[in-house]
Formats: sequence, structure tokens, C-alpha cells
Amino acid sequence: MRPSGRAPDQMRAITIEPGFTTHAEGSCLISFGETRVLCTASVEDRVPPWMRGKGSGWVTGEYGMLPRATHTRGNREAARGKQSGRTQEIQRLIGRSLRAVTDLEKLGELQITVDCDVIQADGGTRTASISGGWVALRLAINSLLASGKLSEDPLTQKIAAISCGVFEGEPVLDLDYPEDSNAGADANFVLTEDGNIAEAQATAEGDTYDEETLLRLLRLARIGCTEIFAAQEAATR
Amino acid sequence: MRPSGRAPDQMRAITIEPGFTTHAEGSCLISFGETRVLCTASVEDRVPPWMRGKGSGWVTGEYGMLPRATHTRGNREAARGKQSGRTQEIQRLIGRSLRAVTDLEKLGELQITVDCDVIQADGGTRTASISGGWVALRLAINSLLASGKLSEDPLTQKIAAISCGVFEGEPVLDLDYPEDSNAGADANFVLTEDGNIAEAQATAEGDTYDEETLLRLLRLARIGCTEIFAAQEAATR
Amino acid sequence: MRPSGRAPDQMRAITIEPGFTTHAEGSCLISFGETRVLCTASVEDRVPPWMRGKGSGWVTGEYGMLPRATHTRGNREAARGKQSGRTQEIQRLIGRSLRAVTDLEKLGELQITVDCDVIQADGGTRTASISGGWVALRLAINSLLASGKLSEDPLTQKIAAISCGVFEGEPVLDLDYPEDSNAGADANFVLTEDGNIAEAQATAEGDTYDEETLLRLLRLARIGCTEIFAAQEAATR
Amino acid sequence: MRPSGRAPDQMRAITIEPGFTTHAEGSCLISFGETRVLCTASVEDRVPPWMRGKGSGWVTGEYGMLPRATHTRGNREAARGKQSGRTQEIQRLIGRSLRAVTDLEKLGELQITVDCDVIQADGGTRTASISGGWVALRLAINSLLASGKLSEDPLTQKIAAISCGVFEGEPVLDLDYPEDSNAGADANFVLTEDGNIAEAQATAEGDTYDEETLLRLLRLARIGCTEIFAAQEAATR
Amino acid sequence: MRPSGRAPDQMRAITIEPGFTTHAEGSCLISFGETRVLCTASVEDRVPPWMRGKGSGWVTGEYGMLPRATHTRGNREAARGKQSGRTQEIQRLIGRSLRAVTDLEKLGELQITVDCDVIQADGGTRTASISGGWVALRLAINSLLASGKLSEDPLTQKIAAISCGVFEGEPVLDLDYPEDSNAGADANFVLTEDGNIAEAQATAEGDTYDEETLLRLLRLARIGCTEIFAAQEAATR
Amino acid sequence: MRPSGRAPDQMRAITIEPGFTTHAEGSCLISFGETRVLCTASVEDRVPPWMRGKGSGWVTGEYGMLPRATHTRGNREAARGKQSGRTQEIQRLIGRSLRAVTDLEKLGELQITVDCDVIQADGGTRTASISGGWVALRLAINSLLASGKLSEDPLTQKIAAISCGVFEGEPVLDLDYPEDSNAGADANFVLTEDGNIAEAQATAEGDTYDEETLLRLLRLARIGCTEIFAAQEAATR
Repeated sequence: MRPSGRAPDQMRAITIEPGFTTHAEGSCLISFGETRVLCTASVEDRVPPWMRGKGSGWVTGEYGMLPRATHTRGNREAARGKQSGRTQEIQRLIGRSLRAVTDLEKLGELQITVDCDVIQADGGTRTASISGGWVALRLAINSLLASGKLSEDPLTQKIAAISCGVFEGEPVLDLDYPEDSNAGADANFVLTEDGNIAEAQATAEGDTYDEETLLRLLRLARIGCTEIFAAQEAATR
Repeated sequence: MRPSGRAPDQMRAITIEPGFTTHAEGSCLISFGETRVLCTASVEDRVPPWMRGKGSGWVTGEYGMLPRATHTRGNREAARGKQSGRTQEIQRLIGRSLRAVTDLEKLGELQITVDCDVIQADGGTRTASISGGWVALRLAINSLLASGKLSEDPLTQKIAAISCGVFEGEPVLDLDYPEDSNAGADANFVLTEDGNIAEAQATAEGDTYDEETLLRLLRLARIGCTEIFAAQEAATR
Repeated sequence: MRPSGRAPDQMRAITIEPGFTTHAEGSCLISFGETRVLCTASVEDRVPPWMRGKGSGWVTGEYGMLPRATHTRGNREAARGKQSGRTQEIQRLIGRSLRAVTDLEKLGELQITVDCDVIQADGGTRTASISGGWVALRLAINSLLASGKLSEDPLTQKIAAISCGVFEGEPVLDLDYPEDSNAGADANFVLTEDGNIAEAQATAEGDTYDEETLLRLLRLARIGCTEIFAAQEAATR
Repeated sequence: MRPSGRAPDQMRAITIEPGFTTHAEGSCLISFGETRVLCTASVEDRVPPWMRGKGSGWVTGEYGMLPRATHTRGNREAARGKQSGRTQEIQRLIGRSLRAVTDLEKLGELQITVDCDVIQADGGTRTASISGGWVALRLAINSLLASGKLSEDPLTQKIAAISCGVFEGEPVLDLDYPEDSNAGADANFVLTEDGNIAEAQATAEGDTYDEETLLRLLRLARIGCTEIFAAQEAATR
Repeated sequence: MRPSGRAPDQMRAITIEPGFTTHAEGSCLISFGETRVLCTASVEDRVPPWMRGKGSGWVTGEYGMLPRATHTRGNREAARGKQSGRTQEIQRLIGRSLRAVTDLEKLGELQITVDCDVIQADGGTRTASISGGWVALRLAINSLLASGKLSEDPLTQKIAAISCGVFEGEPVLDLDYPEDSNAGADANFVLTEDGNIAEAQATAEGDTYDEETLLRLLRLARIGCTEIFAAQEAATR
Repeated sequence: MRPSGRAPDQMRAITIEPGFTTHAEGSCLISFGETRVLCTASVEDRVPPWMRGKGSGWVTGEYGMLPRATHTRGNREAARGKQSGRTQEIQRLIGRSLRAVTDLEKLGELQITVDCDVIQADGGTRTASISGGWVALRLAINSLLASGKLSEDPLTQKIAAISCGVFEGEPVLDLDYPEDSNAGADANFVLTEDGNIAEAQATAEGDTYDEETLLRLLRLARIGCTEIFAAQEAATR
């Protein structure tokens, strides 16, 4: 039995509020139950030094957590003077995932930075960041297309991410914090709308797991991403 | 004529949404027009090393700005590896202001950290942080009183802050970004409900100003703070 | 055709030289073809602050690359003043993998730090680090058992890691640098001797991949790890 | 009664020793009683990146305190690896104050850095820095005018700064350390010779203060600055 | 011919002004010609963690250079966020030299930090720091003896340091900046009053040098240190 | 009697394994007994900013120690976020020593970085770094000459370094760790093949030493360097 009473393959309620902030070219507040992440996409007329003059653009992700997004207050990374390994790992994952569905050549020499800032954390912040980050990116690109700054759409399809894991011996979908902190294995899948995989990560937290479990987790992720794709569609129509 | 069409002594619309996040002992989202700051108050059972064993508590403030809170994206301070001088100056001001209305001895050996994170910036983020920070602090202390963790109220009264400045030669109240970035002088006042001053800062950005101007700015601040006290009262009733 | 002429399921030559350095309680130099990593396991009579007094131990990993381990010289991380996100991600993976086969309670209040320093890089340094790290850990624990400092063996079984990926459309095992830098997908599997999975990571570098590919990569990893387990056995017998 | 026996509106002895060091284009050692600050003005043929090509110059301030300038030794900021919030706040104030009396366009594309290093601290180091910094700046500009490097004087008038505060309920001028560490309110005013205000900062340290007190503190500051202007005149004649 | 017209074995004028600052337990301003260093000795009732409980004290040195001590302004180390290798090398040398004439057991569990801050630089700042640092240390210990905090004198004898080098092929004593920046070899000797050597460092800047040159440099250093010992005696009598 | 049983003027066994790694233009693993240092020379087509456009090259050294090179594990400098003063001091010494035998103009606008990474430490790591660094540099330059990238040999002669010191009152050559940690004086000499001195450093660790001792230490260093020159010759022939 899950602490929340959900069925093993049941997601938490997803809401996506597009345009949550006004300065960014694209933005949304995405919620998976109590987890809430503000995603903004910022367009700049410059690419990183190592990309210059290649006629191609860049999409990158940054991630942060407000100090009291969590149950107990954490230190502010800016005050500690460095980002944790966890933060950097998540940032790399967000950027990689969004680039997997972006044709960087069609983007021209623009850089889009997708900032994902966790307002409230209850498990699954990295996957919410990717799922919401795609919405912010889609909205920013829509505005570039509308203004004629881009003539061709560089986004090839939707991408979404969801966590799943083994909780009390049972594969379950969309872990919340009470499940996440007690999971036997913890997986994150980043899937594209056409059914392919951009990223699969499955980590044994306690006991190791077998191949069958890996496949069952992937099946659950497919269920969850289908629901996220629908929410993304509704938010960006 | 102000860019927004406001009268010289007219504030922007103030809204305070208490309980915006759920983990913090106290929280609110405060808006002054387009400026929006998330304030959370976190209670911890420990005080800084130099305060230990004195039977007295501590209230401190931290401040951050999401990278795309501003019109153009700024660097993430956590990524740059240090907080700017401006951030540190604001943090010190928030903490000092809130301590001015807190009886630290009545707090006992607790520390309350008030985090003020700017979701969207359009001028006046530091004063919104103090005004909203008080609401978060009030709510956190209410819950400590309700749970019996505190027996006496350590908050002595309300405190609020507002910016004002000289725009096109005229003292005006509650600068928004277009005014702030062109102000001849820029002032921040932190006032207590009993009419006293906790902090007065008035800086010539272009021309220096005379004593009469300083007094007119203070009069404007009194008008603004009266309005803020009412909003604080409504949000914490 | 692979640049090295290897068959798709063919590993590079593995050598493990145990006791490569003398101060560490356990050490080895592990090579996968031209990739060479020095692994040392250091035992200390203390655990991290958050573990103290629980009667349980800790195993952690650190990772570094000598500046000219690579084809062109990289900056020294100590000189740059911080470890890259990649380094931190690998360190976390090494520690997590080794803890998956360690019974931390049987370790008592000891900490073992496994340092993996890349002397020469030609692809697969993180997986070589885990595979060689286990050897260093095994040797260190052997010496603790021999000296009577431990009475029960806390290592439950062998663990090994190998990279595989999609090169020119074909799943191949044990990527070398020319393959790794052109792979369509890049995977790392950490497997235990009993056939279970401790960690699966498969990342699309260019095109996304399908479920069938994920499974074929896992099959290749099983072939590779079988060979590594044999080399580990020979090195620690 | 003030600990020093001074009258409420009585300054400490001011001395300004121009040309204290020889390499800087302008320098002085300024003393307010036991507080001694070495101020140097350094001219460089370059402006910050964001100022380049605008035909305009820049004046900036830096501030430091020798480790044993204070009653008990403080840590060296260079050793701690960062400047405190207080140091940065003071640096910003020094630069802003000196720019308030500099016509940056007349300066041409030069940068003048005014370094204020506290040799001995007994209260009022930031205001002594501004007052002495103006002397160093004046002397540096004199030498640029004498050498023909500048044809027009970019300095529009004198600027001086002084602290005052409420000590044992009484507004007093030019706080020394025993007063400063026990002040109920602590104010710094930066005034120009024509009687205008460049910066007013008045902070409640203990009790908040009323408008009348703010005005009395400003009156005291005017008395003090008149004396400083005379000392600046004598030192730069 | 030396730029200054000095004879090869001629020192610059040495002046030592004891008690230059008042807070430190011992202090002096030492000058070798235009080189001026402020040395303070600060006594603290604690020793570094690794010395605690051994009944023995510690003497350490710190070194800094004001940004405009030099001919052209250098960056402030506190602003750059780290001390240069040169600074750290000099700090280590100062501490080692002063400990060579201190009986740390007689000091008891006290730490004395000797801060050497260069007010003006014209060559030989590290040797002036050691020579002046001894004076500050001597004065601090005198006050500890006078107050009865120490019963036995832990300073065994005087120690002094001087630079010398090969300038235009000729060994010369006490290099000033024009010589130092063109020296073929650059040496620093730290000598004790009894004629022994605490530290010898001789570096080829351009051509390497022979053994005879090393000995001639040492002879010059003996001449210089004799003069410094006399100045130290006069300053601490 | 030395702990190792060696005669006072007896070196430990020296071995130099050239080409230990394959990516670097020159490399070797040098051993002095149990001390083992990996030296690589990396050629880059760029010089530091302050050297550009002068037609001259640069040779620099970097130094590191693997965390468990030592008897007890030390912290990784990359993790601590800065290099120690000791590391920086050694790096400066390596670079200076190698430049003493390099005609930088003949090198053209190339930079060669010699990385010295200590695999195992048993005393004398800095001198082994210089001696092995020369071999790596020689091999890198040989390859530049062979490929025609250089037409003239910029290396003027061999350079070698050795430690010696006073152990139990007796000058001895090539200190190992048990001697080094108990030495009364500790010296490092960097000598060129023609018998000249590039660097002499002799530090009293406990008692100060006299001129005769300095000379005896230098004699010992000459004996040691003669042996190193032979090993360098054999390794680079």
C-alpha cells in the first residue's frame, strides 16, 4: 500500500500553469502533487565560446532549490559558494534531455537557458523540471516563431520525464517524498513522444534489482509520460 | 508624469498570499504590482555559535533572485560561487529590520531564518522582502505560540519597508523598475507601526539632494507603510 | 566495423596489477586497453559526522584525472578551484556502487575511501574505476580481516561496471575513446556477480533509442562483466 | 557624558597627511582621533568592460582593514577567500560617494581606484575613508591636470562623510569605538560642500528612532563636515 | 654601478618605528629605504587545533601587500578570493624564521600571529617583514613578561633577514626594486645573531651561479644583518 | 646511522621509465627508492597572455599529490577547492628550474607544461619532480625536433635536483621520509650539469646551522646530481 493510497501505476495530479512569470520568453509553474517547480526559458543572442561561428544554437538547463522548498531548511547554495554534485548532475540531465528534441542547427546562433527552480519539493523535482522545462522551451520557441526570429521550428517532438521505483518490493510510479526516501530502487526515465528513450537511470538504493524489474519500471514510466504529454499539450496549445 | 500613470503618492497594488508554501513554519507570496517575492520563515532549534547558552534567540534574513526574475537573465549566484555585494547588503538589511521588532529574549534559543526569494522583479524587491518577511515571521511565531513552543509573543509590533525616490525632479512613492533605473535619488525606509524609523537610506544616484527632499521622501514612505501595515494585518489576522 | 577491429561483444584486454602502491591498505592499477586507473582504498578510524555513533561504517569514492591523462591537456581541477559536475557525478556513482555490495554494519565505525585516479584515459574511466575500486576495497578488507580488525567479511559479493553504446547504429561493448566520442547512445551498467543490476544508465547522445536497444546493451554488459569478475578473482585470490 | 569627555557636537582631532606613500598618483593618511586610514588613488588607462568606448571614465573604491587594526585580531579577508558583506557594502558606498562629485565625462577613458586601508580602527572607518579618499582623488587629479593628461577638472566640489548616532539617548557627533559599539542608532551622512546630501543612512541598532532624531543627527553631521572640508582644503591647497 | 649609487656592500637607510599602532601587543613600522612594512604581533589565548593540550605555543606569520604599495596597482587578494603562491611562500618563511628563535614550550599555550603588511614596496619586502616582525614579536613578549603572563623569556636571540643578489655580474647587498627586477640571481638569507643560518635561498633568475658567488652573497648578508641587529636593538631597548 | 642503513653520501636507487604514458609529448615515471612521480610534458601552441607576440615560449610546472600517495590519506586539493601553499611553492620551483636550462626564444611561441604527479611519496618529491620533469621536457622537445616543429634545440643542458639535510647531527644525502620528518635542517639544491647552481634552499627545521654545514650539504648534492645526470642520460639517449 502506498502512503498516499495511490495505485502502483497512478500519477499524482499534474498541473501546468503557463506564463507564470512575465519577463521570460517562456515560463510555467508545473506541479506534480505537492512538488512545484518554476521553469523559465530565456533566449539570448549568443552561444557558448566553443559553439561560436558554427551557425548552430544551444539549449542548456540550470536547476536550483529554494532553501525552504524541503521539509527542513537546506543551506542556500549561493551562500555555500558552490553547487552540490546533485545539483550539477540534475542540470546536466535537464540540458541533455531538452537538446535530445531540439534541432540545434534550426535554432541558429541563439542560446536558450531553461532555469528550473524548485519552489516546493515532495519527490520528483528533476523529472518535473524536465517536463516543465519542455513547456517553457516550447513557449519561448513559439514566441520566436511568432516574431519571425525563427522561421523553422527547431523542436522535433515532446519530451517528458518521470520517476518510478521499487517501494516495499513493488514497482510504483511517480514517487513522492515518503516513498522516495524509502525506495529500494529509484529510477528516472526521460521519454520522447514517439516512444523512444532519451535517458534511463535506475539505481539500487538498497537491494540490487533484476532485469524484469527494470522493464516493469520502464512500463510504468511509459504510462506516466503519456499523461504528462497530454498536460504539456494542453498547456502549450 | 510617472510611466505607470500613478499619482506621486500612489502605491502599486499590494497583495499578500499567506501560506504560499507548506513546509515552512510561515510563508507568503507578496506582490507590489509586478514585483513578487516568496518569503518563508524557518524555525530551527539552534542559534549561531556566538549566541549559544545566552537564553536568547536570533532572527536572520537571506535573499536571492531567481536568474530570470529580471528583464534580462542574470547569472545564478550559486553558479558564480559567491553572493554579490548587493545581495549581502540586502540580507543584512532584512535581518536587522526584523530584529528591530523582535524581542530576542522572548524567542528563547530558537533561530528563525526568513528567506526572501524574488520570483519576479520590477523594482522594490528589498522593501517587499522586508514587508513580506514580517508576514512570514508573524505566521511562524503564531504557530509556535499555538503549539505552546513559545508562551509569550516575541514580536513587538509590525514593521514595513517601502522605496521612494526622485523621478524627473519629483519625489514619488514605490518606484517601479522604469522609475528606479532613472531615479535621481533612491531611498528605502523601514518604519514601525508606531511611526518610528528602523532604517533610513537615501542615495543620490545622479544629483545630490537637499534636506527638504529627504523629508518629503520620508512623508511618502509613511503613506506607503500605512497601506502595507493594513495588508499585513489582513494577511495575518 | 569498430575502429579497433574488435567484434561488437569483444572487450579490450583487461589487466589488474594488485598492490601497485604500498601505503594504501588496498590498491591496484587496472587497465582496459589504453585506459589505466590507479585505485587505492584507505581505511580510517572515523566516519562522517552524520554517521557517528550508529555502529555502522561508510564506503565512499573519489575520482580524479591527471591533467595529461587525456589526448589534450586539461586544466588541473585543484588549480581551477573546483571539481567539475562530471567528476562529482562519477564520484557519487563509485561510492554508491561499492556500497551496494558492502554490509556497512559489519564494517563497524570505519570509513574506507576508494580513490580512483586516471593515469591514462581512452574511454571507460568511470567503469574501470568501479571495477578496480572493488579490487582495492577487497584487498583493504582482506588486510583488516587478516589483522583481526574485522571479524566478519562485510563484502557480500563482487561488483563490476562496463560501458557500452551504439556506435554507427550497432550496440557494441566496452567503448574506447574514438567510439565514445561518436556514440549515438552511451550506457554504463554496474552489475553484481549474482546477475543483478546496481545501476543502469543509458543516455542518448544523438538519436534517442528504443527498448530493444536498451536490452541489447544490457546483454553486452553482462558479457563484459563476466570477464571482469574473472579478472577481479584472479587479482584478489 | 561621552566616554571621551567630548561635547555632543565635538569632533575628534582630524589630521590629513598628504603624500603618505609615493607610488600612487594621490595619497594621504587621514586620522580621526585613533582611527587611521591610508587612502591612495591609482590612475589606470582603462575602464571596466561595460564602460568601454563611451568616452567616459570611472571612479571606484576599495576598502580593507589590516587584521590587527582592531582591538582583537580579525581574520585576513584574503586568507578567508572572500570579502565580508560589510566590506563590500563599504566599498560600494565609497565609490558612489566619490562619483557623486566627479564629472565622469570630463575624466575621459581613465579609471581611478581609491583604496582605503584601515591601519587602525576606533570607529568611523568608512566615513574617514570617504573623506580621505576625496583628498587622494583630488591629488591624483591635480597631477593629471598638471601633466596635461586632463585639460578640465572633473571634480565638481568637495565631499565628506561623518558618522553620528544616539549614545545614551543623546545624539552625538563622530562616534568612537566605545560609543559605536553601544549606540542606539548609528548614522552615516555623506555631504557635499554646497550643503546637499549624497547619502544618508541611519540605522536603529537597539530602539527605533523618530523623525526629530534623524534631523538632529543630520545637523550634527553638517557641523562635522564643515570641519572636514577645512581639513581637506588645507591638505590639498 | 648600482642605480642608487650605493657601494656593493652598502645597505639602504634602516628605520624602525616601534609602537606604530596601539591595539597590537607589539608593533613597528620598518623601512629599508623606500620599502615600508607595518608589522604587528597579536597574542591570542589559543593555539591551532593540532597543537592543543601539548603545553606548547605557536608563532605564525601572515603577509599582505596593499594594492598600491607597488609601482602599478595590483589586485587586492581579498577581492581575487585567494592568496597568491608568492604570498603563501612568504608567509611560511616569516613564520618559520621567527619560530627558529622562539622556545615554543616557554611560550605556553599562546599563539602569536605576526602580520606583515607592506605599505610601500621597493624591493626586499619579505626580508623587511622578518626583520620588523622580530621587533613586533620582541615587544609583544616584553609586554607579556611585564604583565607576568610569561615568567621566562621564550625568545632565544635576534633574527634578521636581508636580500642580496647578482646585479650586472656583481654581488650586491639589499636590492632595491630597480636592481631586484634585473638581478641575475636573487638571494634571501635569514641569520641569527650568533652567526648561524636559519634559511638560505638563492635563485638564479637568469644565468645560474657558482659556489663562490653563493659564498660572496652570504658574506654580504652577514654585513647587512649586523646592521639590522643594531637597529633592532635600538628599537626594543 | 641512517634508518635505511645507507651511507651518508649514498642515494636511493634511481629508476626512470621513459614513455610511461602515451598521450603526452614526453613522459616518464621517476623513482627514488619508494618515491615515485609521474612527469608529463604537454606542448601547446599558445603562451600565457603576458607573453603573446614576443616570439618567445614558456615552460611551466604543475605539481600534485594523489590523496593516498602518503602514509595517511590527505585531502584531495580539488575537493578542498584550493592548492596549498606548499603545492604552489613547489610548482613555482619546478617551472623556474626548468626555465633555467631552456632558451625560451628558441622555443618559439609554444608553451610546455610539465605536470609532476606524485604516485607514492617517501621524501624528496619536489626534487624527483624536477629531475623527472627534465626528462619529460627533453623527450617532448626531442619529438618537436624530430617532427621539424623546432629547428634548434632550446634545452641548453641537463638540470637535476636533490634533497639533503642534517639527520642526527650529520649531513646526509637524499632524505627519505623517516629522515625528512626528523631532520634538523632540510635543503634542496637544483644543479646544472656544468656544475652551477640554479637554486639553493636550506632551512633550519630545528637548530640553525653554520656555513660549513651549508657547504657540506652542497657537496653531497653534487654527488647526488652526478648520479641523476647519468640516469637522465640513459633515459633519454
